[in-house]
Amino acid sequence: MQFKFSEKVAYLQASQIREILKYSADPEVISLAAGSPAPEALPAKELEELSKQILEEEPGIAFQYGVTEGYTPLRDEVKKILQKRGIFNPEYDDVVITSGAQQANELSAKVLCNEGDTLIVENPCFIGSLNAFKSYHVDLQGVTLEEDGINIAELEEKLKAGGVKLVYLIPNFQNPTGNTMSREKRKQAFDLCGKYGAVILEDNPYGDLRFAGENIECIKEYDTEGRVIYSGTFSKILSPGIRVGYVCAHKDIIQKIVVCKQVADVHTTMWSQMLCYRFLKKYDLDEHLRKLRRVYEHKTGLMLSEIEKNFSSKITYTKPQGGLFIWCTLPEGVSTKQMIDFCTVAVRDYKVAIVPGSAFSIKDTDECRSFRLNFSTPTDEKIVRGIEILGKLSKEMFGD
Amino acid sequence: MQFKFSEKVAYLQASQIREILKYSADPEVISLAAGSPAPEALPAKELEELSKQILEEEPGIAFQYGVTEGYTPLRDEVKKILQKRGIFNPEYDDVVITSGAQQANELSAKVLCNEGDTLIVENPCFIGSLNAFKSYHVDLQGVTLEEDGINIAELEEKLKAGGVKLVYLIPNFQNPTGNTMSREKRKQAFDLCGKYGAVILEDNPYGDLRFAGENIECIKEYDTEGRVIYSGTFSKILSPGIRVGYVCAHKDIIQKIVVCKQVADVHTTMWSQMLCYRFLKKYDLDEHLRKLRRVYEHKTGLMLSEIEKNFSSKITYTKPQGGLFIWCTLPEGVSTKQMIDFCTVAVRDYKVAIVPGSAFSIKDTDECRSFRLNFSTPTDEKIVRGIEILGKLSKEMFGD
Repeated sequence: MQFKFSEKVAYLQASQIREILKYSADPEVISLAAGSPAPEALPAKELEELSKQILEEEPGIAFQYGVTEGYTPLRDEVKKILQKRGIFNPEYDDVVITSGAQQANELSAKVLCNEGDTLIVENPCFIGSLNAFKSYHVDLQGVTLEEDGINIAELEEKLKAGGVKLVYLIPNFQNPTGNTMSREKRKQAFDLCGKYGAVILEDNPYGDLRFAGENIECIKEYDTEGRVIYSGTFSKILSPGIRVGYVCAHKDIIQKIVVCKQVADVHTTMWSQMLCYRFLKKYDLDEHLRKLRRVYEHKTGLMLSEIEKNFSSKITYTKPQGGLFIWCTLPEGVSTKQMIDFCTVAVRDYKVAIVPGSAFSIKDTDECRSFRLNFSTPTDEKIVRGIEILGKLSKEMFGD
Repeated sequence: MQFKFSEKVAYLQASQIREILKYSADPEVISLAAGSPAPEALPAKELEELSKQILEEEPGIAFQYGVTEGYTPLRDEVKKILQKRGIFNPEYDDVVITSGAQQANELSAKVLCNEGDTLIVENPCFIGSLNAFKSYHVDLQGVTLEEDGINIAELEEKLKAGGVKLVYLIPNFQNPTGNTMSREKRKQAFDLCGKYGAVILEDNPYGDLRFAGENIECIKEYDTEGRVIYSGTFSKILSPGIRVGYVCAHKDIIQKIVVCKQVADVHTTMWSQMLCYRFLKKYDLDEHLRKLRRVYEHKTGLMLSEIEKNFSSKITYTKPQGGLFIWCTLPEGVSTKQMIDFCTVAVRDYKVAIVPGSAFSIKDTDECRSFRLNFSTPTDEKIVRGIEILGKLSKEMFGD
C-alpha cells in the first residue's frame, strides 16, 4: 500500500546524528557524536533513593493521572527558582512542566506559527528544534551564528522583511557550536524583536553548565511584556531519561501550550516530576551544579588540549565556556562533501564517531565544512584516544 | 501584549471535562466524571518492587537518553503479544512505544493529514482525540454512533464524498458511550475504507477490560496491506501516570511517526518503559487482566443496579460489557442547555460531578441530551451515594 503523508512530514527525515549513532552500537566505536550528560555527573544514587521514597509514600500520585500543567509542587518550585533568577515574572508569566525542553520548543512553534510563517533560527542550529519547526511547515530562515552570537545586521534585515513570528535562540553554549551570545547582542536581539513584533524563544538547556567566563543574564530577564518564551530542562542536570523540562512564558501563551500538551501526551510522567521536586527540596542545587561544572570543566579542558596537540593546525575550533560541544572547522576550500567524507571515514574505518556539521544546516544546499565534537559522554581515555585518531586522519587529509 | 496564535490552536479550548474536574478538587464532591482506572486495579506494590530492581540493576539505562522507537525489550515484547493476537504482522508492520495512546493518536493524524483534510470520527467521540485532531486543523466529520457502532450508511456516504484521509474508531467500550462495535460493522467499515482509500485509526485502550459478552476481533486483524493503524496503552492495565502506550502500523507509517515523536519528546520516559517490560516478563498478563475484569465487572454491575433503582424511568442508559463508562440519555425533548443545567446543578448544588455529553460532540452546534458516568474511579460507597443523589435530581427535573 502507498501512503500519502501530510506535506509537513513527507520530507522530514530521521536526523543524520541518529544514523551516525547507529555506528556507535558497535562497542569498538569511540563516540564523540552524542549529546548525553556525563554518566558520572548524573546523581543516580540520590535519584534511586528518592524514587524509593516516592513509591513508598505516594504511589497513588505517582501511578495515577496528573494534571496537564504539571505536578503542582514541582511547578511551584520551578517558579521560585526562575523568579529568583529574574526569569519568571508572576505578574504576567506562568510555567508549565513539559516532557523535556524538546516538547517546550515544539509546542511553542505549534501555538504561534501557521504553515508558511517565518521562523528565524541561528545557522547552524540544534537539529531537534529544526525538525520540530519543520514539522509545522514553517518558513525557516537561518541567520549566521558568530562566535558572540547571531549576526545582528542579518537578523534585522530578516525582521524588516516582515512576517516573522518567532526567533529561536540558544544563547548559552549553543548546540552545535558551543558559542555564547554576548550581553550586547542579547539586548540588541531583544530590542529588534520588540521593534518588529516577533516573539523570542530562548532555549537554555546548558545555562547551568557554565564552568568558565562571566555569567550573562538571560534574554528573558529583559522582558517586561511577555515577548520572550523561556525553556529549560532537568535533562542536563539530573537525568535526560526521565524527560522533564519546563517552559516559562506569558500566561496567554502558556494557556495555549497547556491545551496542546493535553492533546500531545496528557501530562508528563508523574514519577519523573516527583523525582525532580524531591531532588530540589532535599539537595542544594547550587552545590550540585558546582560538582557538575567541575566534571565538565575537566572534560572540555582535556579535549581542547588534545585537539591542540593532535589536530592539523589548519583546523579551527571553538573554546566553549560551558555546555557539551566543541565545533571544529576544516580549512577554507574544503567542500561539504569532503567534510562528510572525513566524518564517514572517521567512523567507518577508524571507529571514531563525530557529527557532520551539515546535520545542523538550515537548508540542504548550505555549504558546511565543520563538525561537532561532544566531550561529555566519552570517558577521559576515549577522549584522548578519539582525538588522537581524528588528529592523524585530519593531518592525512588536510596537511599538518 | 497581544499574541497572534496559529489558526489551528486559536479556537482550541481546554476540555470541558477538565473544567468540571476542577470542582472535584472539593473533597466533598463525589466525582463520577473522571476516566482514571480503579485505584485497587493498579498493581502498585508490584510496580514499586520492579522499580527498585530497575534502579539498582540498570540505572544507566533508566536515567540516560534512549532511542525514539522505544526501549527495545519492551518493543519486542509488545510485538510478541500483538502478533499472538493477530494484530502485528511482521511482514509489513512495525511497533513504536509512545507516551500514552494519546500521543499515538495525535501523531497518526499529524503524519497523515494536511490542514483541511477530512477525518471521520464517531459522534460522540473521545474528547482527547477530538482536540488532538482539531489541533492540526483538519475537517472533522462526525458519523452517528449507534449501540452496535458507527452508522455504516452514513460512513459510506461521507467516504463517497471523497477526500477522507483517516477514520478514527474506538470499537471496544467506546469513550464516552461504552458501546461496542459489532463484528459485522467492523468488517463493513474495514471494507468500505479499503474501497474508498481511507486509513483506519483503531484506538483500543479498553479492549482488555471486557468482563461480559463475547470477544470480537480487532479491525486490525482483518488488515492485509497496512490499512489499519492500531493504538494501545498500559494506562488502563498498569498505570496511567507512567504514560506508556504503543502504536502498531505499516512500517512506512511508523517511520514517519518515529520522526514526529523524535521532535515531540525525543523518547518516552525510560523508567516507565522498563517497568512495563519487567511486569510483562515477571507476571502472567492474562491472570492480571482477569483480576482487573472482576473489579470492573463488580463496579459496573453496582452502578447499573443503582441507576435502575434510582433514576427517573425516562432516562435511558447503555449497559457496557467492558471499559470505564456508562452513557445516560435524558428524555426526548430535553435541550442541550437543559442537559448542561442538569450537570451543573448536580456538581454545584448536590456535589456530584458528571460530564455533559456535549463535551464529546463534534460541533458546538450539535444537539446533545446525554451525560457520561464513570464507574472505575469512585469507591462503591460513592457510586451508591452519587447515583442516589443524581436519581433524586433526575426525578425532580424530568419526572418519575
